[in-house]
Amino acid sequence: MKKIYQITLIIIIFMSCAKNEKPIDLSLKISSLQTEETEAKIEELVTKMTLKEKAGQMLNIGLPSVLKGEYWDVRDSVNFDAQKFKKFIIDYAVGSIHNTPQYPATKEEWFKIVKEIQDSAMQKTRLGIPVLYGIDNIHGANYVNGSVMFPHQIAVAATWNTELSRIGAEITSYESRAASLPWNFNPNADVATNPLWGRIGESFGEDPYLISEMTNAYIKGSQEKGLENSASSAVCMKHFVGYGAGKNGKDRANAIIPENSLRQYFLPPFEKALENGAMGVMISSNAVNGVPCHLNTYYITDILKGEMGFKGVVISDFSDVEFLVAAHQSAKDMREATKLAVNAGIDLLMNPYDADVVDLIVELVEAGEISKERIDDAVTRVLRLKFYLNLFETPYNNPNEYPDFGSEKHIAANYKTASEAITLLKNENAILPLSSNKKVLVTGYSANSINMLNGAWSRSFLGRDTTYNDPSKLTILDAIKKQVGTKNVDFVEGTDYLENINSDLAVSKAKKADYIVVCVGEIPASEKPSDINELELPKVQQELVKKLAKTGKPIILVMVQGRPRIVREIEPLANGILMAYLPGQEGGRAISDVIFGTINPSGKLPYTYPKFTGNILPYYYKKADIRDIDWGYNGFYPQFEFGFGLSYTSFEYSNLKISKDTLTTSDKFKVAITIKNSGKREGKEIVQVFIKDLVATVSPDSKKLVRFDKVNLKADEIKTLEFDLTTKDLESIGINNKWIIEEGEFEILVGGKPQELLKQKIYFKN
Amino acid sequence: MKKIYQITLIIIIFMSCAKNEKPIDLSLKISSLQTEETEAKIEELVTKMTLKEKAGQMLNIGLPSVLKGEYWDVRDSVNFDAQKFKKFIIDYAVGSIHNTPQYPATKEEWFKIVKEIQDSAMQKTRLGIPVLYGIDNIHGANYVNGSVMFPHQIAVAATWNTELSRIGAEITSYESRAASLPWNFNPNADVATNPLWGRIGESFGEDPYLISEMTNAYIKGSQEKGLENSASSAVCMKHFVGYGAGKNGKDRANAIIPENSLRQYFLPPFEKALENGAMGVMISSNAVNGVPCHLNTYYITDILKGEMGFKGVVISDFSDVEFLVAAHQSAKDMREATKLAVNAGIDLLMNPYDADVVDLIVELVEAGEISKERIDDAVTRVLRLKFYLNLFETPYNNPNEYPDFGSEKHIAANYKTASEAITLLKNENAILPLSSNKKVLVTGYSANSINMLNGAWSRSFLGRDTTYNDPSKLTILDAIKKQVGTKNVDFVEGTDYLENINSDLAVSKAKKADYIVVCVGEIPASEKPSDINELELPKVQQELVKKLAKTGKPIILVMVQGRPRIVREIEPLANGILMAYLPGQEGGRAISDVIFGTINPSGKLPYTYPKFTGNILPYYYKKADIRDIDWGYNGFYPQFEFGFGLSYTSFEYSNLKISKDTLTTSDKFKVAITIKNSGKREGKEIVQVFIKDLVATVSPDSKKLVRFDKVNLKADEIKTLEFDLTTKDLESIGINNKWIIEEGEFEILVGGKPQELLKQKIYFKN
Repeated sequence: MKKIYQITLIIIIFMSCAKNEKPIDLSLKISSLQTEETEAKIEELVTKMTLKEKAGQMLNIGLPSVLKGEYWDVRDSVNFDAQKFKKFIIDYAVGSIHNTPQYPATKEEWFKIVKEIQDSAMQKTRLGIPVLYGIDNIHGANYVNGSVMFPHQIAVAATWNTELSRIGAEITSYESRAASLPWNFNPNADVATNPLWGRIGESFGEDPYLISEMTNAYIKGSQEKGLENSASSAVCMKHFVGYGAGKNGKDRANAIIPENSLRQYFLPPFEKALENGAMGVMISSNAVNGVPCHLNTYYITDILKGEMGFKGVVISDFSDVEFLVAAHQSAKDMREATKLAVNAGIDLLMNPYDADVVDLIVELVEAGEISKERIDDAVTRVLRLKFYLNLFETPYNNPNEYPDFGSEKHIAANYKTASEAITLLKNENAILPLSSNKKVLVTGYSANSINMLNGAWSRSFLGRDTTYNDPSKLTILDAIKKQVGTKNVDFVEGTDYLENINSDLAVSKAKKADYIVVCVGEIPASEKPSDINELELPKVQQELVKKLAKTGKPIILVMVQGRPRIVREIEPLANGILMAYLPGQEGGRAISDVIFGTINPSGKLPYTYPKFTGNILPYYYKKADIRDIDWGYNGFYPQFEFGFGLSYTSFEYSNLKISKDTLTTSDKFKVAITIKNSGKREGKEIVQVFIKDLVATVSPDSKKLVRFDKVNLKADEIKTLEFDLTTKDLESIGINNKWIIEEGEFEILVGGKPQELLKQKIYFKN
Repeated sequence: MKKIYQITLIIIIFMSCAKNEKPIDLSLKISSLQTEETEAKIEELVTKMTLKEKAGQMLNIGLPSVLKGEYWDVRDSVNFDAQKFKKFIIDYAVGSIHNTPQYPATKEEWFKIVKEIQDSAMQKTRLGIPVLYGIDNIHGANYVNGSVMFPHQIAVAATWNTELSRIGAEITSYESRAASLPWNFNPNADVATNPLWGRIGESFGEDPYLISEMTNAYIKGSQEKGLENSASSAVCMKHFVGYGAGKNGKDRANAIIPENSLRQYFLPPFEKALENGAMGVMISSNAVNGVPCHLNTYYITDILKGEMGFKGVVISDFSDVEFLVAAHQSAKDMREATKLAVNAGIDLLMNPYDADVVDLIVELVEAGEISKERIDDAVTRVLRLKFYLNLFETPYNNPNEYPDFGSEKHIAANYKTASEAITLLKNENAILPLSSNKKVLVTGYSANSINMLNGAWSRSFLGRDTTYNDPSKLTILDAIKKQVGTKNVDFVEGTDYLENINSDLAVSKAKKADYIVVCVGEIPASEKPSDINELELPKVQQELVKKLAKTGKPIILVMVQGRPRIVREIEPLANGILMAYLPGQEGGRAISDVIFGTINPSGKLPYTYPKFTGNILPYYYKKADIRDIDWGYNGFYPQFEFGFGLSYTSFEYSNLKISKDTLTTSDKFKVAITIKNSGKREGKEIVQVFIKDLVATVSPDSKKLVRFDKVNLKADEIKTLEFDLTTKDLESIGINNKWIIEEGEFEILVGGKPQELLKQKIYFKN
């Protein structure tokens, strides 16, 4: 028996190789149900299924499709439409559902919704397969009323503290599963290279390594208890691939990504996420080089499922099969679009409104235009995730068994994340922290809004609806009032997002204040509503700062925004500048605590903050992009560099040591650095390690982040940090689009300030 | 014998195929010396050459390297340095020279320079090979004092009159050869997709077809008499490839061009130029996808010399082998850089300052790091061009045999080109043409400058030096004064390029005028000095318009600039807007004649004029780039569309007819349209034919220009135009990076106004 088994395995491996696919890797356990037995069960179940049942498993509809009323009706309670419910849940036996009832249900309401669906799916369909419920948990279980809403990803990245990403994901999964929602359409592993893009706030920024580290910590937090655990949720990596690089910066715009950039920057975060157990991947709505990702066989089947050996579920984004017709003009009708998408390798089609694709899949398979193997592969993947999540045994969870839901413990983790994210970008003459016994004028569009702190995906899609705001949460204004006393605070709105309200009143009040805290920012938005045509901070908000500056009173500029909106003209007018990103529900408190010094800021920028609309580059540019021949009008002048951020204390670096000066293939080496808190108070410092290839056939990047750490140091404390590196860190994509290292000199750059990194050369010899 | 010959030929073809090279095509005659005999002579000569002599032929130095003084010294006469001269011309026997003595010599002075060089090269070297002199004739023989200086290419493109490109090139060649300069580093076939790029003015714009048509007409004008003719110059296509697509818009910045874009947009103008007899190609200084073009074997050897079968000379741009070290960090020293560049396929190295690369080539060949075959190939190509130009017989030309040099005939052609280029972008209530008996205030940075009309490459590199300006040429102000009488014209500078001069004075004078002609624009610049960080027209110039608008007097805005500088805020304040581009020496007259109606404007934009810095796309965008879901903040809003331009008369289109409604492979078809001059005066109209693929796997472009024509119509005149098309026009680059046509519907769009094209569908069936 043993020998036969071995031969079978070899054949399986061989067959997999023939399809350029790795066999399923059972060594990385992400569920106790990740076993040979489960694979056998799936195979058996697939064998039993009719073609229509298989196609049904490949459909993901929107919840409102089984509710009374029109799909997009605003609701405040859930009422199933019996006829629709029967059609989708019983007759079509849909494999998966997403979306909310168009309001943020409580965990108890969610329980009822999911229970009703699962009981019907499991008891009233022939095969009793549970439904896989997926939801956009972008920053906490944001669609479950009462949940903790964390800072958005860009702020988490700005903490450079992967543990905070892990804890945030752990809490998100717990609070999501408390609502019987086992599958999160998160984290976002998009590499955001175009600052115009409206969803930068939802990303971990521009650096592939930082994104990977934050993503992996997130996956760990979501899944490390095992997917079958009732506190875990499965992640769904998104968006595969290139969403953050739209050429004109618009949501879902065509991205221009040559093969070497794809492999150097865009694929690694996904590759590492799969290595860390991600079992879902959502396809990007956009096209790359004109090829819509949803029909890109090369990306999905050859790279994702082939090279990377992905064994989980590939899901389309919202209506994106339809959009192959309507948006991309790449298919003449839904039949062709369905064929293209399924044949490209999509397993689960997020078609919110109807089950037409199920009929189309059946038709296409019967016509021989989609192979049965492709369908079986898709269904196998969907079932695999359901098994791993143990949905057959635990299709929903008891909402009363989640005592920590929305708890003080969770709120504390949220506050800590916001606190560590806030990035001090300017502190002229150590104006910050402010003393608490002075008079403060608080003004600006983001000064008194919980919604702006939370951004989009906060109870409602755009996050602008205030109906479900938690009255116990503090805006920046509330928090400052609490800190310095209401009598010491004046508040004037100043401006709306794009319109002046009463900036002159703000100016007259400013004259009576000791300090001005002016809070600017972006209206909560995502996807198309987040499109902008100019990267500059809206003029009216800049005008407010300019007018206030004329009073001569010190200005603290607080920026509440996902994107790095250009502030070149007002930056010189502010004495202190805080980037708060989209800091979430505890952001008001955290901002105030930084301003008044309870918190020593420790965030650093996870992207390059541009200074000019006509000079946009990530930090990993080429020397030729910034070549300066003393002729003016050239060079690269970001407003603030990637990795930049100040503290209320100061840090000194010394003693950079590299364990080897010459490396050869597969060598390991250590980089050590000594860091001293040379200031007067305790603080956290982010230490960054970059590598620069000094000469490479493909013009080398200015530098590449390869390690980082965040350390806490008391005043005068000294620590030596040691980083383990390998020659793999020296690799870059060579002229033949493979990872290579060319013989020659490299530079290791270490420190906490982009302009003052310590440097040392090493030599790589083949 | 015959049979043996055939076999030999087959072997040669086979060998060529093996190297992915086409055999030399002798069917397209571009010189009477393009013969088998010449090929045999070349082969014989190469056989005689020493390795050092071969390497010498591969070097192109700058003229100042053989002159007294430092290279960059400003001079006003030519004095050879005997020692340097002997070193380069005799000892190294350099193959080629470029550049000026750092002042614009007369044709007689040029004759002396070239004669001295050629006589020495041919009489004092072992093999007596003449030197190939190349020069940047960008817009006329601009480095020959007294020559005609035409509008820059972008203006020529705006005429949409290929005959003007042809005539301009013919005159340029003639006036260049009058100075014994037989090789022009022109035309520019760069596809300018980034409006920030400083050399857009030197390009034919953003459309590959318009670029190709203008380029081919240029080649015809330069070469059609035969390269051996003493009125012809050989062209040198530039820059191969992707210079106009730098990611951050900076000169020589890394461009991001995936394979399908390369083939769809960037290669065709070069491919067609080679088909039309271009025998020189200059490599682009930038990197594409991080790979410096100067070491890109795939681009140079595989595509250019292989796929396209190029048999001419591939030359590096200025110092670009050195810049593989200094700018791209792709080679560790000059030795490695030389090896990379030569092995990539570069035949002639423009290393201005020294002959080190000759020694390095010798060393590299002797070390076996460059093959002898590669060197022989390079030398063969250099010699081939010298033979075609008949330099062995006519190494220089008698400057007295060029009676039309700078003649009225040439000036008339120049004026006509400028006149047809000027593009009327706005004419509110038919404010233009102005009547000549009113008072006019002329103001603005470009109002009284010949240098701004000429732009860079005008007697001096940057074109800012006024020393050699021709006093007989009129600025805009001069021409307006001549038109309406000095007493009716007030002039106030208003602003400098970036600084206010006396805009308040302009405003006070405006109050007394009937009309304001405000002339804005860009400082003459090219290459790095043309880098900008903001696409907006400089603020101070916009401020001038804003201030003038407050007077309520009608404003005519004249833009003298290569780039489409953003004017969103001032466009509504102008009653009439003229885009003059860089209209050359007769531009002042032409602008005035358009303003006062002697000329009915007939130019149309050869690029998309953007409205917002954050929404930059060429006209061939994808639908997904501009998808509008009624949410605001999206869509594509250019200030003016590609192909847009008004006239003082009006045109009506009707009766679009396509000869077939269904096409199949290799079909020919005709597109006919009737056009009527429905206004009150004679005028020229540009008729454009676009094709749109309605459905394609690779998301189709919004449309693609495939034909155009410019017709003159008297008032009420009606003409029917017929265009010959083939299914080749339907092709686009498919998912496998090959030109394909997918079965399905296409749309033919014809007309003269981008928003009002007549449309008809056709069907392509495989």
